[in-house]
Amino acid sequence: MNLLERTVEAIRPLDAAAVAAATEWQARLTKPPGSLGALEDVSIKLAGLAGRCPPPLPEPVATAVFAADHGVHAQRVTPWPQEVTAQMVQNFLAGGAVVNAFARQVGSTVLVIDVGMAGELPATTGLVTAKVRPGTADLTVGPAMTERQAIEAIEIGITIAEQLIGDGYRCLVTGDMGIANTTASAALIAAFTSVEPGAATGRGTGVDDATYRRKIEVVRRALDLHRPDPGDPIGVLAAMGGLEHAAIAGYLLGAAAARVPVVLDGVIAGAAALAAAALCPDVLGACVAGHRSAERGHAIALDWLDLRPLVDLELRLGEGTGGLLAVPMVQAAVRVLHEVATFDAAGVSEKR
Amino acid sequence: MNLLERTVEAIRPLDAAAVAAATEWQARLTKPPGSLGALEDVSIKLAGLAGRCPPPLPEPVATAVFAADHGVHAQRVTPWPQEVTAQMVQNFLAGGAVVNAFARQVGSTVLVIDVGMAGELPATTGLVTAKVRPGTADLTVGPAMTERQAIEAIEIGITIAEQLIGDGYRCLVTGDMGIANTTASAALIAAFTSVEPGAATGRGTGVDDATYRRKIEVVRRALDLHRPDPGDPIGVLAAMGGLEHAAIAGYLLGAAAARVPVVLDGVIAGAAALAAAALCPDVLGACVAGHRSAERGHAIALDWLDLRPLVDLELRLGEGTGGLLAVPMVQAAVRVLHEVATFDAAGVSEKR
Repeated sequence: MNLLERTVEAIRPLDAAAVAAATEWQARLTKPPGSLGALEDVSIKLAGLAGRCPPPLPEPVATAVFAADHGVHAQRVTPWPQEVTAQMVQNFLAGGAVVNAFARQVGSTVLVIDVGMAGELPATTGLVTAKVRPGTADLTVGPAMTERQAIEAIEIGITIAEQLIGDGYRCLVTGDMGIANTTASAALIAAFTSVEPGAATGRGTGVDDATYRRKIEVVRRALDLHRPDPGDPIGVLAAMGGLEHAAIAGYLLGAAAARVPVVLDGVIAGAAALAAAALCPDVLGACVAGHRSAERGHAIALDWLDLRPLVDLELRLGEGTGGLLAVPMVQAAVRVLHEVATFDAAGVSEKR
Repeated sequence: MNLLERTVEAIRPLDAAAVAAATEWQARLTKPPGSLGALEDVSIKLAGLAGRCPPPLPEPVATAVFAADHGVHAQRVTPWPQEVTAQMVQNFLAGGAVVNAFARQVGSTVLVIDVGMAGELPATTGLVTAKVRPGTADLTVGPAMTERQAIEAIEIGITIAEQLIGDGYRCLVTGDMGIANTTASAALIAAFTSVEPGAATGRGTGVDDATYRRKIEVVRRALDLHRPDPGDPIGVLAAMGGLEHAAIAGYLLGAAAARVPVVLDGVIAGAAALAAAALCPDVLGACVAGHRSAERGHAIALDWLDLRPLVDLELRLGEGTGGLLAVPMVQAAVRVLHEVATFDAAGVSEKR
């Protein structure tokens, strides 16, 4: 068995006894039953993931930003030049991007992984070089990568998750950088959920009407060319995905196998999660949807995955920013199970 | 002039030059323009409040939980016994409630102010005794309090804000505790926004159908009895408010006068903000809506105030919990203005 197969094999469903214990415990705490809304569900899920109630606090936090380039950039689906991928990675490494500011806010480490940038960057602290190929091929012309390369990128994601967990991190966040990656995301979302290209495709970093129409058309052509089979996620990733999508799918699988929660950022993570769930549905037990992006296909992906986003503020930046914003809420949800007194212990009367 | 008049007199609109500077600065940062969604608006508002860009980071944080009882409890609008107000305050002081857990999560101090609990509590660290009266009167029978008492409670809120700001806190959060206070909130929301009692009234901590119908009827009777004039906010508060509503209204005014941001919790804060805005519309320049509660009238209050909630997770707990969850997002929004590199400085190409 290869690393991917071993990892999928290791993933188990939520522990039913811990889910039941957390549900029962929430009802005993000094608050009206259900009054913490969606955060109660998060706490119960994380108990099921850990297999005990209360589950460990999801900290310390690490954000892995998977960076790659996209051959589909040639189709003029974005007004941003391709070199911005590398420039932004330099910005991440210098600590000057929004992901860095948000990571400092919530106390997260940021690691950048080059899984497939077009250019080369000098070795620096915080940069992991694991380039599968220098960007994907243009998905409107042929497969974005080979199946072998898709598996390689997935296994890089698994390895990064394993290393971070080995280093003691107990809450992972997904991040991404790759100019044109919302186009590949739209193609993946259309492939896995069978929605129309127009429903799966959004305006990314803010494209004009002509570019937006072109972007939808590109997704349509890709679907026509590849006729993706959602039952073959490696095939779908190879045909139309990005190297960061494959790596993030692996990162989710690696976290789930180790039963460590992973907070998803936006549409790129959503598309990657569709692939991961097609490989192993139980991966979703480790996934918390950090936010819902303004990017159109993201809501479709989240609905398909039945994940409820914690933040919904029309962000459309990526990098891990929306995932990081949700981290304190995930931690707060678990903290309740550790720290809040029961009615009995606090001597508070229950409702009549 | 009394303290209330002096405070209202001191409140000024947002500084237009700082708003313009923050708007312009956001566009220069290394991210697609507008990609931080609602958080860009928060950062711009806080620049306008501070009168400079970047505004100071909103920290350290203090949460003031205003506790009071409600004569309308006699109308059986809630299944919780009235003594739960005092029991939960003891729980807050012991650090065992959700507000304490969330405060620890975001590094906030918690102060509890007895502005009108029915019972007496022994003096303890963290408890401020400033009881205006031992609970309000039943608003279905007569005024909840006198206008003199409403002003006194407002001035307690102003004083608490001033003291916290004097102690160095630069982000205030509203909190509340008072069994039956969602009924008074519904009456205030109906009075200030002119919606029907059924639209303003929610199920609070989770009442059954019979109690819910009774609660709506109680709000209707209160409106018929008092015929509140929304142009006379002191009169409205005295007729139908809680002592914590009046105190929170004052707390907002005190924060606004000192140009310190205040994060609103749920429906009680929303009802109080309607009163504060009726006294001085510019108070809203200091207010950030922390969350939207599941309580029905809260969305109406937020729409009326034109405040966009940052968290929307069906919480309906109160205490300050929803406000606290939003604090890291407010801080992250401001942090962007301090820490994120510009396109020029980072050498990142802009879109074509």
